Amino acid sequence: MKFTVNRDRVHHAVMSVQRATAARVIQPILSNILIQSTPEGTLKLSATDLDFAIETQVPTTGIEQDGRITLSAKKLSEIISKLPGGSDVTFTIDEAVQTAKIECGSASFDIRTLPADEFPLIQQIDTENYLEVDHIAMVRAITQTVFAAAGYDANNVLGGVYFHLTASSLEMAATDGSRLARRLDTVATGNVSEEVTAIIPAKALQEFLKLGGASVEKSENEDAKPDTVRIAIKDGQISFRTPAVYMMSRLLDGQYPKFQQLIPAENKIVAYANRQALISSLERAAVMANERTNVVKMSLDKGVMSLAANTPDVGDSKDTMEVLYEGEPLSIAFNYKYVLDALRVIESDDVRMETNGALAPTLFKANDENEYLSLVMPVQVK
Amino acid sequence: MKFTVNRDRVHHAVMSVQRATAARVIQPILSNILIQSTPEGTLKLSATDLDFAIETQVPTTGIEQDGRITLSAKKLSEIISKLPGGSDVTFTIDEAVQTAKIECGSASFDIRTLPADEFPLIQQIDTENYLEVDHIAMVRAITQTVFAAAGYDANNVLGGVYFHLTASSLEMAATDGSRLARRLDTVATGNVSEEVTAIIPAKALQEFLKLGGASVEKSENEDAKPDTVRIAIKDGQISFRTPAVYMMSRLLDGQYPKFQQLIPAENKIVAYANRQALISSLERAAVMANERTNVVKMSLDKGVMSLAANTPDVGDSKDTMEVLYEGEPLSIAFNYKYVLDALRVIESDDVRMETNGALAPTLFKANDENEYLSLVMPVQVK
Repeated sequence: MKFTVNRDRVHHAVMSVQRATAARVIQPILSNILIQSTPEGTLKLSATDLDFAIETQVPTTGIEQDGRITLSAKKLSEIISKLPGGSDVTFTIDEAVQTAKIECGSASFDIRTLPADEFPLIQQIDTENYLEVDHIAMVRAITQTVFAAAGYDANNVLGGVYFHLTASSLEMAATDGSRLARRLDTVATGNVSEEVTAIIPAKALQEFLKLGGASVEKSENEDAKPDTVRIAIKDGQISFRTPAVYMMSRLLDGQYPKFQQLIPAENKIVAYANRQALISSLERAAVMANERTNVVKMSLDKGVMSLAANTPDVGDSKDTMEVLYEGEPLSIAFNYKYVLDALRVIESDDVRMETNGALAPTLFKANDENEYLSLVMPVQVK
Repeated sequence: MKFTVNRDRVHHAVMSVQRATAARVIQPILSNILIQSTPEGTLKLSATDLDFAIETQVPTTGIEQDGRITLSAKKLSEIISKLPGGSDVTFTIDEAVQTAKIECGSASFDIRTLPADEFPLIQQIDTENYLEVDHIAMVRAITQTVFAAAGYDANNVLGGVYFHLTASSLEMAATDGSRLARRLDTVATGNVSEEVTAIIPAKALQEFLKLGGASVEKSENEDAKPDTVRIAIKDGQISFRTPAVYMMSRLLDGQYPKFQQLIPAENKIVAYANRQALISSLERAAVMANERTNVVKMSLDKGVMSLAANTPDVGDSKDTMEVLYEGEPLSIAFNYKYVLDALRVIESDDVRMETNGALAPTLFKANDENEYLSLVMPVQVK
């Protein structure tokens, strides 16, 4: 196998797929990247830790000899990152001695290979049946929900994000038992003949944001039409395909909690606040929040909200801000981190807070839409 | 005690002195900052972990009532960093209830205080006898030597930097046994009547760079005259005073190795190389260096240098570059990290490499001056 490739292009590709290599090496091949020539004259790079896989393609400046090989992701990325930007890099693989020679200008490297046949097969599960979703809608739904998934156990369904797609809607939701985030959009999905439900590991979606977020930004800057993401589900796995990458993850097995029942149909108490001002006030009050409980008390009165916290033997904090509120005085205590998480992903200037009382679930929403909500359970304080 | 101060100024001051607070709290007062009003209407902020101390002054917009108090550095910096930039902050200390009230706009904080009388005395050891050294010369000498001090033991003399000042020279040197860095400058020192020798903990000098480096840069940008640093040594302690801060550190006790004997008086073998090109080549070759030994082999031949490394079962690397060299072929092996450390602090475009052979100490210098040298001991390889 022999090919020449632009250093910056292969650098970007290696950095992308490297994220899927296994962190702890049980099987050495899982810390390698599979590099294959394609009939179209490009290179396909793949990495997987068996639970999760990323593939991407790189145009070459010439494939002299076709082939398949695997190289250490760590060594490959170290080598390529040290090569001069913009230069051409030539790879010559000698399968007989299991060595790849990488040459660029005055530098040359011999790096051990492992045979491509030992690399696990990454299935292309979207060849027959797939769905299509607007890329920007997908990125927004992930961003607004994934933070609420539980971080403690990757195998628990609460460590995943509920995903529900119909011919006309995209719903994503996550909860860790203390808070819930849900987005339900009316979207023009393509190719969806029946409903699809899945629980996707939060880690896979976070990787999707890291890989895919950049592309979306780029499309927006270039004033291009929003891309779509091609999604397929098969044999307990889900795949996402964008023009840049193919990503695959195992799904979580189990019954997702019936979170819809937790969302109150009606809320009697409503207040409106400037989102950024509320974030700043909350951050200031939180300085004195107990570091174990993170409790901040939010008190509403006509036109004004007070935020207060205290830690015995350390001190007290208090901040007040203007809000739109006409109801009776009300005090609610929260883990302020949950409220900040919710406020940070809401996209509007003003937010709406809705509840039925000091111990009832409290909703945070954009002031002018209902597609997204973040529900936070209050804390009972003496 | 009651005063009002600009948020950005007090923020900068708290961030500066906070670096001297104790990392692990044995005495709670050592994690506090001492705040005192001065007769000049400024505030003096102090922190110390007993080995090391930093003091700085802040102009106020008004001291209504004089006093002295200590506050938690962590809580104070958290509070101030969350307050709006440019705003005025008012501190009101009620010593009867050991509480400081901090008010700024809509926000107010009550924070526990500890009495100033419990705070250790930070001596001003430069009131009678002191020396003066050019600030830029001092920063350069520290930068070019401190990295070579041993990192493993803060109480060993090798964990310090040798400091020698006469009426006309400033010498600093550091060695960890495998490499040595020394700068010897002819400087116009002020007020030096006799020679001064000390071993200064590397940590104190690194803090000096963090605090003082910024001021030097600022002076240079503003085209101002280089500042001087006032230095005093007394009772096993050293102090540095700049317009911005007063810093004090204990000195290390003991006999510093006679490093001058290690520096060869004459070197038969000399090569010149572009500094940046050598750094890049060395970094590329180092990709395949054994991660335990860090060995890179440097081979010189007429007009060319090759850098090579290898790790069994991983791979080999090789890079070549043009150098000015007329001698016989020669191969020397180094811990490449030591060579990179040396090359990175040399300030000239080209560097001079000098040695007497493959197993002799090798010097790295700027091509056109002798004030600075970095000595690296080669490694014997089979």
